[in-house]
Amino acid sequence: MSVYVSPVKDMQFVMENVAGLSRVQQLPGFSDAGNDIVEAVLDEAGKFAAQLIAPLNAGADKQGARLVDGQVEASPGFSEAYKAFVEAGWASLSYDPQYGGQGLPHVLGTAVAEMWQSASLAFALCPMLTASAVSAVHRHGSDELKQIFLEKLISGEWTGTMQLTEPQAGTDLAAIKTRAVPTTDAAGKPAYRLSGQKIFITWGDHQMTDNVLHLILARVEGAPEGIRGLSLFLAPKYLLDENGKPGDRNDIYALSLEHKLGIHGSPTCVMGMGDKGGALAYLVGEENQGINCMFTMMNNARLEVGVQGLAISERAFQQARAYAGERVQGTAKDGTKQRIIDFPDVRRMLMLMKSQTEAMRALALMTAAQIDLADHADDAAQRKAAQARVDLLIPVVKGWCTETAQEITGLNVQVHGGMGFIEETGAAQHYRDARILTIYEGTSGIQANDFAGRKTLRDGGAAAKALIKDIRETVSTMLSAGGITGTLASQLAAACDGYEHSVNTLLARAGEDAGHAGAAAFNLLMQAGVVIGGWLMGQAALAAEAKLAAGDGEADFLNAKLASCRFYFAHVLPRATAYAAVVQAGSACLMEPDESLI
Amino acid sequence: MSVYVSPVKDMQFVMENVAGLSRVQQLPGFSDAGNDIVEAVLDEAGKFAAQLIAPLNAGADKQGARLVDGQVEASPGFSEAYKAFVEAGWASLSYDPQYGGQGLPHVLGTAVAEMWQSASLAFALCPMLTASAVSAVHRHGSDELKQIFLEKLISGEWTGTMQLTEPQAGTDLAAIKTRAVPTTDAAGKPAYRLSGQKIFITWGDHQMTDNVLHLILARVEGAPEGIRGLSLFLAPKYLLDENGKPGDRNDIYALSLEHKLGIHGSPTCVMGMGDKGGALAYLVGEENQGINCMFTMMNNARLEVGVQGLAISERAFQQARAYAGERVQGTAKDGTKQRIIDFPDVRRMLMLMKSQTEAMRALALMTAAQIDLADHADDAAQRKAAQARVDLLIPVVKGWCTETAQEITGLNVQVHGGMGFIEETGAAQHYRDARILTIYEGTSGIQANDFAGRKTLRDGGAAAKALIKDIRETVSTMLSAGGITGTLASQLAAACDGYEHSVNTLLARAGEDAGHAGAAAFNLLMQAGVVIGGWLMGQAALAAEAKLAAGDGEADFLNAKLASCRFYFAHVLPRATAYAAVVQAGSACLMEPDESLI
Repeated sequence: MSVYVSPVKDMQFVMENVAGLSRVQQLPGFSDAGNDIVEAVLDEAGKFAAQLIAPLNAGADKQGARLVDGQVEASPGFSEAYKAFVEAGWASLSYDPQYGGQGLPHVLGTAVAEMWQSASLAFALCPMLTASAVSAVHRHGSDELKQIFLEKLISGEWTGTMQLTEPQAGTDLAAIKTRAVPTTDAAGKPAYRLSGQKIFITWGDHQMTDNVLHLILARVEGAPEGIRGLSLFLAPKYLLDENGKPGDRNDIYALSLEHKLGIHGSPTCVMGMGDKGGALAYLVGEENQGINCMFTMMNNARLEVGVQGLAISERAFQQARAYAGERVQGTAKDGTKQRIIDFPDVRRMLMLMKSQTEAMRALALMTAAQIDLADHADDAAQRKAAQARVDLLIPVVKGWCTETAQEITGLNVQVHGGMGFIEETGAAQHYRDARILTIYEGTSGIQANDFAGRKTLRDGGAAAKALIKDIRETVSTMLSAGGITGTLASQLAAACDGYEHSVNTLLARAGEDAGHAGAAAFNLLMQAGVVIGGWLMGQAALAAEAKLAAGDGEADFLNAKLASCRFYFAHVLPRATAYAAVVQAGSACLMEPDESLI
Repeated sequence: MSVYVSPVKDMQFVMENVAGLSRVQQLPGFSDAGNDIVEAVLDEAGKFAAQLIAPLNAGADKQGARLVDGQVEASPGFSEAYKAFVEAGWASLSYDPQYGGQGLPHVLGTAVAEMWQSASLAFALCPMLTASAVSAVHRHGSDELKQIFLEKLISGEWTGTMQLTEPQAGTDLAAIKTRAVPTTDAAGKPAYRLSGQKIFITWGDHQMTDNVLHLILARVEGAPEGIRGLSLFLAPKYLLDENGKPGDRNDIYALSLEHKLGIHGSPTCVMGMGDKGGALAYLVGEENQGINCMFTMMNNARLEVGVQGLAISERAFQQARAYAGERVQGTAKDGTKQRIIDFPDVRRMLMLMKSQTEAMRALALMTAAQIDLADHADDAAQRKAAQARVDLLIPVVKGWCTETAQEITGLNVQVHGGMGFIEETGAAQHYRDARILTIYEGTSGIQANDFAGRKTLRDGGAAAKALIKDIRETVSTMLSAGGITGTLASQLAAACDGYEHSVNTLLARAGEDAGHAGAAAFNLLMQAGVVIGGWLMGQAALAAEAKLAAGDGEADFLNAKLASCRFYFAHVLPRATAYAAVVQAGSACLMEPDESLI
């Protein structure tokens, strides 16, 4: 088991110096979110995560969620922790005050979400899925639906689920078969009866709250085939009585739980509807517009899964760092005992973990701050630019942070040597838990196709080029600043050129080589992740060196940040050239050979 | 669970066209190892592995080895399979005929070992550790010791263990505390009594055979501190009676088994000696020469662990390939159902798995063939050159193949999408099992230091430069050959230049930057692996294209091989540039920051 300490200092530094917190604080509605509030929220959340959630994580791995007599029993301590979480108001932090939310910026909510996820991925998945449900109902639900359900979701009093996948319909949502038949509810209001089966439903059932609201993609009888015939529905586990309290059991049940590699504390349910006449459900948005509603939920979830990658990386780094500082192995020539942190290759592994985790945090918080701008900026052009940046970056946050989390949780096992392979050490749990992150809410391949296709080709590279322009501005600032930061500037410039070349290649070949984007997508995504990480670490280095020169801030923290930036440029940024070379390779070596030759 | 089919065709192709089988067949002692024998052995071993071992692998994950009343119970079916394995003569394939071995070349033994490991890492660890014991006793044991024990080890009638690690002494063998006190055995022959505790002892106990021979590093009373005071001992689980049969129980016991991330079927034991007066043991080699004997065992084990990386990659590839060819997901514009193998990114993952597995196989078999040359060549200079090549390549086989196995078993999970995270699918088992490979028998960091320090710096880069010369010869041949192979030649030439530059940098900086080799080692090792893989794939492409032109051999297989080579050059070889850049980075970014800044 590993102790977790919330990285509040780094979060504050990144928010203030890289993500653009001060710009967010000036937005309408965020006047309450001053630096003192931000600090207090981070501190309190950090304590809650470290003291009340993190200690449950190893136990929830050993005793995962269980299905007993048709009811899901949560792992030990989860129910009590969830109640405390709701009572302390953590569920509602960055939601609309009109429905009981606290209206704090998304950038702060994202920092706090990282802490829940570091403390326990399995636990934090429950509020994470609820957040997706909130976003769908808030954006697409009728006023009446919001009136009835939204406050309960926002407070966390009830939780939400996101039910898309069916056995034949994973990535391919067009194949969804769950059916919806129009009816009316007990009060005579329009409703539907749903029947079908959903799989891989995270926290699909539990008894931590007295109701669960299921957001379900289904097809209204007679609707078109394919994704254009899908609609989104809300089906409560318990139908509401005349007082709005949970009453009769609705016809939607957890049929079984999956036996998974990791996140054992998160019940992954097969859900059945229709054995008792169908689950009564309400339409969210309009009929056949389900795919748009789904994208609202999905975009929220994708950002949060990226944050999970960051979060488990931070947890893994902390564990490896602690072990490396304690584990004695070998004797130096002068007879002193050496700890493994004295060995260059162990330092290499620790710094790979630390520097990439910090780069991921900068990416996630910057993206979240852009969401605040996109939602709240006065100026329409600013909102539009921010939204374009968010759309471009979400697959990078999801894809790059979760792929990098595989490396980092693997390095944690490696730093522990033989002990890392022993389950009781706990390094293996983080490694197992992290493995789902590149898969759910759209695999890395899906993120890559989204990034190369919808986010780069579709706008002729406009959003990518706006990003490249911003990176070049940072390069200029770094050059003028001199110091250590100045020495890094030319590397960032070259990496940015390389990314631009990849984007141009993608655009140029789209016509002549139909398979190119698909063949290049994964490497383009990873290249973008590494380069954007370098951009943000460059900004961090600028701020750290300026503060050091001004005698402003804690010197140790700032020097550590500089060391992390230097390392990132020396050991991580060079990977961009390898990804770039593959982007150039074209699709022939993949798509020409007949299937029988693979 | 996944079906396994032994890749006999690729093994034959690689042995004949890349590893240099014909040269091995001309060596003294190998006249019986004609192509017909090689083919028959591969076919039969393939059937045995696929039909008798592979089906046990998933069950052994679910029900791992257990300690019951002080005795280790093997996983279901293992004991019967092991008996059949010994009876069929598989244990003795490439051992000295003087002691009952079949004397077949190591290159063939290595191909066959890959099959056992693909079938079940957990099972195959037992004969693998026995092989290390054979090599130690064969090379260092007295004639009397060999007479008594070697035939039983070679036949597999008894198995061997390798007992180095203690809680405080993992990588740092100098800290070993197990004590040996001189005594005599029941027959009055010189012996020792050992007391101490060993951890992480693979197959340290079991009841599959009627004896187990433990090879144990310990310190004779009064011996010097450090590694120069270590001696190697052989302690049988059951002492032999006057007829050479297992008699009284020796004082060496499995005290507990570890609860591990993977290879559950392989009992990882804490071993205790000395509670009943000490384990009676015989010296192997001379007193205080234990570390040399240990290196004999270790070199053998390192090659075999590299083969495990190859083997689990082959198994993972086969599973992913089968799933990708079956799993329907999505509909093409013309209305036909698509299987995921139709998607470029899935092909990318499959080809990463396939091409790297083939490159690893070529590396492992080529190294094994060099061992045959080093052991059997008539000419002393040839033996010496081959041994230098083997010494250089063993850390590459161990380090690169096991690191690559992490990627490939991870890709198998990824290709399966959500199903990959479900334990019943079996992809997760390969992923978990593979995780130990970069750790045991020397972590990747240890391999890297061995490669950069002992194998490159110590001889002033001579062995590395001999390798570079050979790679350049292949480049010339590829250029002259033209065709697809010719188009790949310049890439290999550039990659080889890059490797030479890294070696020269290592040599040049050794004086001025003491930390450089340690800081650069891992990336140098990975660079070498990728470049050598490219060299061997270049040779494979040469042979495949020549055979296609001559109408010799199976066109589908040869075209598949060419496709694999093209992909390797397009998607894998570019990684060498990223590794090379890190080798240039120097140690400052790792070693300058105070520990408190990490």
